Amino acid sequence: MIDRLIDGIIEKQNPTVVGLDPRLEIMPQFIKEKYFNEYGKTPKAVGKIFFAFNKGIIDNIYDIVPAVKPQIAMYERYGHEGVQCYIETNEYAKSKGLIVIGDIKRGDITSTAQAYAEGHIGEVKIENRYYNIYNQDAITLSPYLGFDSIEPYIKYCKEYDKGLFILVKTSNPNSGEIQDLETKEGKLYEKIGELVSRWGKALMGKHGYSQIGAVVGATHPKQAKALRNIMPDTYFLVPGYGAQGAKAEDLKGCFNEDGLGAIINSSRGIIAAYLKESNKPKFSEKDFALAAREAAIHMRDDLQKNLF
Amino acid sequence: MIDRLIDGIIEKQNPTVVGLDPRLEIMPQFIKEKYFNEYGKTPKAVGKIFFAFNKGIIDNIYDIVPAVKPQIAMYERYGHEGVQCYIETNEYAKSKGLIVIGDIKRGDITSTAQAYAEGHIGEVKIENRYYNIYNQDAITLSPYLGFDSIEPYIKYCKEYDKGLFILVKTSNPNSGEIQDLETKEGKLYEKIGELVSRWGKALMGKHGYSQIGAVVGATHPKQAKALRNIMPDTYFLVPGYGAQGAKAEDLKGCFNEDGLGAIINSSRGIIAAYLKESNKPKFSEKDFALAAREAAIHMRDDLQKNLF
Repeated sequence: MIDRLIDGIIEKQNPTVVGLDPRLEIMPQFIKEKYFNEYGKTPKAVGKIFFAFNKGIIDNIYDIVPAVKPQIAMYERYGHEGVQCYIETNEYAKSKGLIVIGDIKRGDITSTAQAYAEGHIGEVKIENRYYNIYNQDAITLSPYLGFDSIEPYIKYCKEYDKGLFILVKTSNPNSGEIQDLETKEGKLYEKIGELVSRWGKALMGKHGYSQIGAVVGATHPKQAKALRNIMPDTYFLVPGYGAQGAKAEDLKGCFNEDGLGAIINSSRGIIAAYLKESNKPKFSEKDFALAAREAAIHMRDDLQKNLF
Repeated sequence: MIDRLIDGIIEKQNPTVVGLDPRLEIMPQFIKEKYFNEYGKTPKAVGKIFFAFNKGIIDNIYDIVPAVKPQIAMYERYGHEGVQCYIETNEYAKSKGLIVIGDIKRGDITSTAQAYAEGHIGEVKIENRYYNIYNQDAITLSPYLGFDSIEPYIKYCKEYDKGLFILVKTSNPNSGEIQDLETKEGKLYEKIGELVSRWGKALMGKHGYSQIGAVVGATHPKQAKALRNIMPDTYFLVPGYGAQGAKAEDLKGCFNEDGLGAIINSSRGIIAAYLKESNKPKFSEKDFALAAREAAIHMRDDLQKNLF
């Protein structure tokens, strides 16, 4: 996965991942009307609305960005109809050549981790038949339970060429409450960074990066820089650019001197670009996907200009 | 929620929660055959099999135990068909008067936590209609992102009488790798215990316990005892009894002197009791639910005898 992701980043000259985090508030009226008329104001209609929206976005960004990151909570909220849309979104993104990073942040004991691993990045076996259920290329995980909560996923990383991004330093304002606690061996997030780096050593790819990456928020540039030194071979998945407040210059510390080492997420800033005040004269709601394309190009150019 | 849970524990004289963690390997052949014949070897069939199994278990334990704890991973593994079964299981358990603790261990930034909170313990709004999607009484959460990842749930705890159990010290063998790290203010799990206790102060129920509880593994009795002192008003959800190795005497430290303070989970030990070697002469696979009932009664009696 990490090699395919880096190949895509180099080919498109763009270390961006687009967060596919649909919310009803940002759906264009014409899509809502179509499916509410057909299915009522139901979770089923919401699943159809989100998929139509995601399809529009994907069709207009797949040649610009290497990857998408659907946030499963936005789908799971609507129950099984939402989860079905999540799965269909993953499938469609993959059919357009995009790497899919499922933002699921699961973390549980070994036997439970095994179930998540099979479903999300492996295969489930039903008697003599095998199914790829969620079909993601990589997923995010929480480290709080320790290595035996991560280990079940590693087999699938090896056998199915998948990847992990483990939470190290998150982008939210309160992340320091626990992650910045001083331990005997440095701050907690530094200690976890060391562990994630060590766990990844057995899964190195051709570009010199591990299939086990880390989530490192762009909203904490100093800490990101410290982590870059602690874990030089670990790819960073970086939330926080745009809507959460981080700018391109804040991201420099996330990258290595080879110009690699990080992929930057933007969600609302791209998918809801048509709602931006300055875009309203230019894009009607029917042009939501064109506005997203322009925002993706703008982000690519911003990163290229200010990072390298 | 915590008052309803404690009322149930007192009424049934049983601090047990049954883990509804279905796996194909423990499903009786006659249930599998029925649905594989009808739906093929598909995720849809698995959803139907799991629900038929869960219904049998619930019908035979609802008068013995106060609560069930479905582990969402076991359902989510099979995609939307599995999630639909999870939702139907919750609904059925509630219809029989059981408290449902969804073992989801989510943990994410505020806007994402809001989506999980609405879906799992609140309501989602679709235009002018409101839906209870997962309909759980309580859920488990991971603390790694800090208080702003917990806060969105608190509103629903207050308004909809729901509860949380936050991971403090988990039952898995490697839990110490991160949770036992020494910080300047004690071990990490102790520090998190203090935080969870503090977060819970604003949500106290009539029995003197907070609606914000903690997950504390039975496999670490010493640490459980230490946590009991650190967080006297926090209810413990305790995994690890039975199949994971902990015995009734290991659990003493989880309880307060009032005989309250903890609810003990058993999953396989109850739901797969019919597969136990010593049960095979007595129960055929058609009697899987009767075997579960007997195991639940045996666990209740074991706890009553050895704890109080």
